[in-house]
Amino acid sequence: MRDLLPEETRIRDYLTHEIAAIYRRWGFQRIETPALERIEFLTAGQGGENEKLIFKVLKRGEKLDLAAAAGEDDLVDAGLRFDLTVPLTRFVASHGSELPMPFKALQIGSVWRAERPQRGRFRQFTQCDIDIIGLEAPFAEVELIMATSECLTALGLRDFTVKVNDRRLLAALAASCGFSADQQGAVFIALDKFDKVGLDGVKADLTGFDERAVGRLLDILSQSGQARSVGEFARNAGINAGIETPGSTVAELEEIIGRTALPPESGARVVFDPLLIRGMGYYTGAVFEVWHKDYPFSMAGGGRYDKMIGRWLGREVPACGFSIGFERLVTELAQKGIAGAAAPRRIAMLFEDGGVFAAQERARGLRTGDTVVSVLPRAKRMGHQLEELRKQGYSEAWLVGNDGARQLSFEQKAQ
Amino acid sequence: MRDLLPEETRIRDYLTHEIAAIYRRWGFQRIETPALERIEFLTAGQGGENEKLIFKVLKRGEKLDLAAAAGEDDLVDAGLRFDLTVPLTRFVASHGSELPMPFKALQIGSVWRAERPQRGRFRQFTQCDIDIIGLEAPFAEVELIMATSECLTALGLRDFTVKVNDRRLLAALAASCGFSADQQGAVFIALDKFDKVGLDGVKADLTGFDERAVGRLLDILSQSGQARSVGEFARNAGINAGIETPGSTVAELEEIIGRTALPPESGARVVFDPLLIRGMGYYTGAVFEVWHKDYPFSMAGGGRYDKMIGRWLGREVPACGFSIGFERLVTELAQKGIAGAAAPRRIAMLFEDGGVFAAQERARGLRTGDTVVSVLPRAKRMGHQLEELRKQGYSEAWLVGNDGARQLSFEQKAQ
Repeated sequence: MRDLLPEETRIRDYLTHEIAAIYRRWGFQRIETPALERIEFLTAGQGGENEKLIFKVLKRGEKLDLAAAAGEDDLVDAGLRFDLTVPLTRFVASHGSELPMPFKALQIGSVWRAERPQRGRFRQFTQCDIDIIGLEAPFAEVELIMATSECLTALGLRDFTVKVNDRRLLAALAASCGFSADQQGAVFIALDKFDKVGLDGVKADLTGFDERAVGRLLDILSQSGQARSVGEFARNAGINAGIETPGSTVAELEEIIGRTALPPESGARVVFDPLLIRGMGYYTGAVFEVWHKDYPFSMAGGGRYDKMIGRWLGREVPACGFSIGFERLVTELAQKGIAGAAAPRRIAMLFEDGGVFAAQERARGLRTGDTVVSVLPRAKRMGHQLEELRKQGYSEAWLVGNDGARQLSFEQKAQ
Repeated sequence: MRDLLPEETRIRDYLTHEIAAIYRRWGFQRIETPALERIEFLTAGQGGENEKLIFKVLKRGEKLDLAAAAGEDDLVDAGLRFDLTVPLTRFVASHGSELPMPFKALQIGSVWRAERPQRGRFRQFTQCDIDIIGLEAPFAEVELIMATSECLTALGLRDFTVKVNDRRLLAALAASCGFSADQQGAVFIALDKFDKVGLDGVKADLTGFDERAVGRLLDILSQSGQARSVGEFARNAGINAGIETPGSTVAELEEIIGRTALPPESGARVVFDPLLIRGMGYYTGAVFEVWHKDYPFSMAGGGRYDKMIGRWLGREVPACGFSIGFERLVTELAQKGIAGAAAPRRIAMLFEDGGVFAAQERARGLRTGDTVVSVLPRAKRMGHQLEELRKQGYSEAWLVGNDGARQLSFEQKAQ
């Protein structure tokens, strides 16, 4: 886990604030769930592979009986959340009657995963999610994509691509190729690696499945770039015609692609990508990701998960979400620089002898807007101190002593 | 642990943002440390009673050997932080060379304590701390009190009292009454309860100690209100005259009291309180708390802890901090209402039939500044929906259908 130093924290705070301001204007309302959830809830099967990475919290007091403990499960009763979606489903199930419906939720918060430390991966990291609960396709999908695209555009991202697909279309495709329903999970997992391993890699991964089905699937996918619409892709793939009726999966996807209005200055577009899978098992409809040619990873991702909240309520609740890859965005934008996140004007008010209170008084009047005024003791080597202040981003300095104040020049270092 | 719903989160976000903006203008820079720290570090004795309340995290993988575990200590390797001060000392020891000195740190973040749940106490709560590292008394003390008072004033608190005392003065007082150095901790703990139990309660708590020493201590404290200055109190108490020389504890305290300029509109004042103790063992000099006659608890508290960072570095580093009682402030201010945190203008853009994309287009142009525009499907019972929207704070609504848009009246409920 890492500490965040002042400059990085400043950029993160700026991004958080900008993103929240935009989403708020769209009607998303920020909520917070606790970092700790009951362990039974976190390990109920919604989190996929992430459930293996939970930091588990030891029982306390009388509840902890080490002698009687047969295994890990007897020792723990809580865990740190590994994402913001699983806690949201509990939140909505618990507080549904207090929430407007549809409910547009914004969450920005830390999640924890006990992953092997590696470059660019952290065991505590920030997620930034919006979700719309209680709104059917394609309305929620269109709004999530529009709002998130506005955020990314405001942060300076240009010419990005929003890829969309649908889990039901994938299921129909797998079925039409001859895979049984219980083989679909494995097929999706293999397809999900396409970006990294290519068609040959996917083929190798599907060894053991019916060869004709695999061959047919890979044929369709390798030719998918030629389809001019989702409907044409479905027809070429021989997918059951029912999927093309109004209100169908194909019609929904076409509506998402055709009707999502992205900010004109973004240069962005929404496209159909039959190879887009997304890892989590909980998706039930549309899935989407934001990609940019300069980056080998997605900038945002999400989809529809209509059955998840229902697990706690016993009735299905429409739900769809979109998550910005906050950590990646911070890294990229911090390297490029963000116009709006420019450092503030910094003034150093150095005091010597009895000047500290006069320095505080002088500083008071200058602290307006973004201007930072820091009162600091004059160092013995003031030239060196000024050089350090200049490096820290100070553009103005004063020396306040018994005889009053005088402005210092950053050029005139020697004293 | 609790979920935070939209309205509470909005007020918390407003407070966080306002407090951070003010502290930033004073030159405080926000940093973040991880939620999890190594367990040996958290239990090294700096956290006092809080160390008993740590949520401990189970070891993972091969490190966890249940069969060989003799006790709790063998099972855990990390814990959730119980405050922001102890992690800050590690942060400064780790990153000192990358930080400006003096370093003015701002931390706003969650801490966790496994307390018995009770009204107004939470197991996860937010702390809001500023600390100045590398600056001697009384400069850091004065700045911390001034900056925090500006925050509290900006949030609407008036006529509050900043009480100050000094651990060295308390030690000298205990010594002059006849207590030995190793009795001081117990004496301070007893005195700390004075607010709740009165002088008689303190006396009962000090049963077993030398009766003359106890009598003398209580005499001095019961008459302390008559002293017109720290120096007079010290003389009356027969405290060693050395403490009154320039640069001494008495001189420092008098300077903090006399020189701290509070915002004129605050109606606040700084006073000496020889009964102010503060619980933590790590304080080495001045301690201070903010009180208001309407509240039976302090709104903020802090003090100097010069020996804590030194534990990790092997050399003493001056350090002084002030923490705003964020949760209490939220509760109080949410009840009173905060002028600046007024709810935004909310517009509902309802769509029916094919109007959703026209509604999104219309909404786009209206989303400026703080204005919230939420695109929502028209409910079957639109009058009921408008009533719900009004309750949620919407002041304007439009209906967008195939034939264009028309404004709806919140009065004209029936449809």
